[in-house]
Amino acid sequence: MNNFNFYNPTRICFGKDTISQLDQLVPKDAKILVLYGGASAEKNGTLNEVRQALGARDVSYFSGIEPNPSFETLSKAVSQVKAEQRNFLLAVGGGSVIDGTKFVAAAALYPGDTWEIMLTGGRSITQALPLASVLTLPATGSEMNRGGVITQRATQSKLSFKSDLLYPQFSILDPTKTYSLPAKQVANGVVDAFVHVVEQYLTYPAQAPVQDRFAEGLLLTLIEQGETAVTQTDNYEARANLMWTATLALNGLIGCGVPQDWSTHMLGHELTALYGLDHAQTLAIILPSMLAEMRQAKHGKLVQYAERVWQITQGNDEQKIQQAIANTRAFFERVGVKTYLKDYQLGSEIIEPVIAQLQAHKMTALGEQRNVTPEVCERVLRASL
Amino acid sequence: MNNFNFYNPTRICFGKDTISQLDQLVPKDAKILVLYGGASAEKNGTLNEVRQALGARDVSYFSGIEPNPSFETLSKAVSQVKAEQRNFLLAVGGGSVIDGTKFVAAAALYPGDTWEIMLTGGRSITQALPLASVLTLPATGSEMNRGGVITQRATQSKLSFKSDLLYPQFSILDPTKTYSLPAKQVANGVVDAFVHVVEQYLTYPAQAPVQDRFAEGLLLTLIEQGETAVTQTDNYEARANLMWTATLALNGLIGCGVPQDWSTHMLGHELTALYGLDHAQTLAIILPSMLAEMRQAKHGKLVQYAERVWQITQGNDEQKIQQAIANTRAFFERVGVKTYLKDYQLGSEIIEPVIAQLQAHKMTALGEQRNVTPEVCERVLRASL
Repeated sequence: MNNFNFYNPTRICFGKDTISQLDQLVPKDAKILVLYGGASAEKNGTLNEVRQALGARDVSYFSGIEPNPSFETLSKAVSQVKAEQRNFLLAVGGGSVIDGTKFVAAAALYPGDTWEIMLTGGRSITQALPLASVLTLPATGSEMNRGGVITQRATQSKLSFKSDLLYPQFSILDPTKTYSLPAKQVANGVVDAFVHVVEQYLTYPAQAPVQDRFAEGLLLTLIEQGETAVTQTDNYEARANLMWTATLALNGLIGCGVPQDWSTHMLGHELTALYGLDHAQTLAIILPSMLAEMRQAKHGKLVQYAERVWQITQGNDEQKIQQAIANTRAFFERVGVKTYLKDYQLGSEIIEPVIAQLQAHKMTALGEQRNVTPEVCERVLRASL
Repeated sequence: MNNFNFYNPTRICFGKDTISQLDQLVPKDAKILVLYGGASAEKNGTLNEVRQALGARDVSYFSGIEPNPSFETLSKAVSQVKAEQRNFLLAVGGGSVIDGTKFVAAAALYPGDTWEIMLTGGRSITQALPLASVLTLPATGSEMNRGGVITQRATQSKLSFKSDLLYPQFSILDPTKTYSLPAKQVANGVVDAFVHVVEQYLTYPAQAPVQDRFAEGLLLTLIEQGETAVTQTDNYEARANLMWTATLALNGLIGCGVPQDWSTHMLGHELTALYGLDHAQTLAIILPSMLAEMRQAKHGKLVQYAERVWQITQGNDEQKIQQAIANTRAFFERVGVKTYLKDYQLGSEIIEPVIAQLQAHKMTALGEQRNVTPEVCERVLRASL
């Protein structure tokens, strides 16, 4: 096991009817900005529940944070925070809203050009407003971590940032608040959580059996409950397990002391930035091809994945690996996320621009061994056509 | 899954040569009291490493915190803190030292009779000094939780307390600091961690597959690595995995949203308080008999335990359960902790006094279903002779 540092102070309030706990969790004198996405938070009643729980507190609202939240939109929220002297940010939504709120929390107190936050990956952050979240979409894990991903529309750049100052103080996870989600968003959440785990698990053996088993436990749960969570709108247990699994998939725990990959994410980010695919769609496209491409470097863990996650006992190692990758692709398709570029009306014309953007963003040595070069990425994209 | 609240702000600094990080972690102007057990921390060099890492800071020392730390001893530490106006407590040792330091942290700022802290289970704590730890013995999980257990020698009362104010700010976990431990203490640590997991796992099914798999992952790791950790003094990987497993066994995570038992612990505490057995020895004696006694109430999870943790596939449910309990007992014996009262020169004469103490401490309806009555405890003790 490698040395590691683990720190995660976010309080999780999990379960039915937990939004009312806002009254205990938010200071009475806080000047709150509630940030959210679109009309759905209004329609499904979540925003109203939040409003009621906050009672007589000083609250204003910022709506319109889009999927893959943009620097341009978030800069407007920063202006509102400054103009109204807001001192507590409450995100109500999914990963995009929470990521965006983290950016606003840092940018509102940032002395220079706030895009610097992205260019330094968050290392230039020295202070941030307190933030918290009410999660409505299980997927990204942003509700219990210190990172986010923001897109600058002007340059089509999708970049990540992180800072210990950006952990939500608390996050409220009420699985019933996911009942009104479109199936497509739940399916995306299943894939997103699955790939988050894989990026921290499918590398090379590192004598970390607990981290391996925790990762496998999350993957097995997603495989068992993913389809039910997508198709049964109000199945509390399936939605609860998806929600807690997605949080644990990226709260830092399973990544402690082990190598990490993230090449699928980096390649996927470029696809989203250039062609507007959902984040999870890009992961579903890239991951199977990436695993196949890196099968030798990942041999040991791929066999373990085949045996422990997919219970594949027949065949030699190569056959087990092949079957495990096929099962992964079939799982994504089964929950409803297509896994080839052609399914999204994209073809080989995208390869050159994507590789150019990877190079522009200095993403030329990705993966746990830094051996995922632009050439490797090109082969992965060709295999994903 | 039940509703839950999870909060754990302790920073974990894990790995080789991490004690030097004290210099970044402890404020320069802190007036530190280092609390430790006996001569071993001096002899094995850990205390000296701590002293060097703290550099020019204002440090004094309190030694003599015993296994099953006593209210009487800790009250002397409280006096020292007050007399010297110490404002930062650093525990260097295992669970007893850290538990004791938590008590001192609360008691030093407590307005009334400090035994009230124990009588209220910690609910009367409204403030506490900041504390941190350098862990030298993997076992109790105290390094990353908010609780402790203290014994009042005068009344032979071993009671627990907890408070959100008692999370260590940070804990340094350097597996090499365990190399000098006697095998007996490592064996006790393996059993302690194992039973911590079982108390949160072997109850009744609660539709919490992630928590189940995390618990099973910890148990499997202890079974795989426990003996090696005990017998191979300087096997880094085995000691590292034991250390991280023991921390995760009782940091609140696997207990989220599921029923919990703790009857084996409550009964064990009385055995320690009356007869001086090591905590882990009492758990190794009680657990197999308790599981056998409660096999009907715990049927579903016992079968799951048999199949997933012990890979028992043959036989009917009853046979699987019987084999799993036998395997559990054999595992404790194999790592070196005896599992019958007679192994410790105790016989049926202890039953009446132990039951009387349970009743005196109002422990008359224990377990996840509150059906572990004094009559049940008596049968468990008889089965453990």
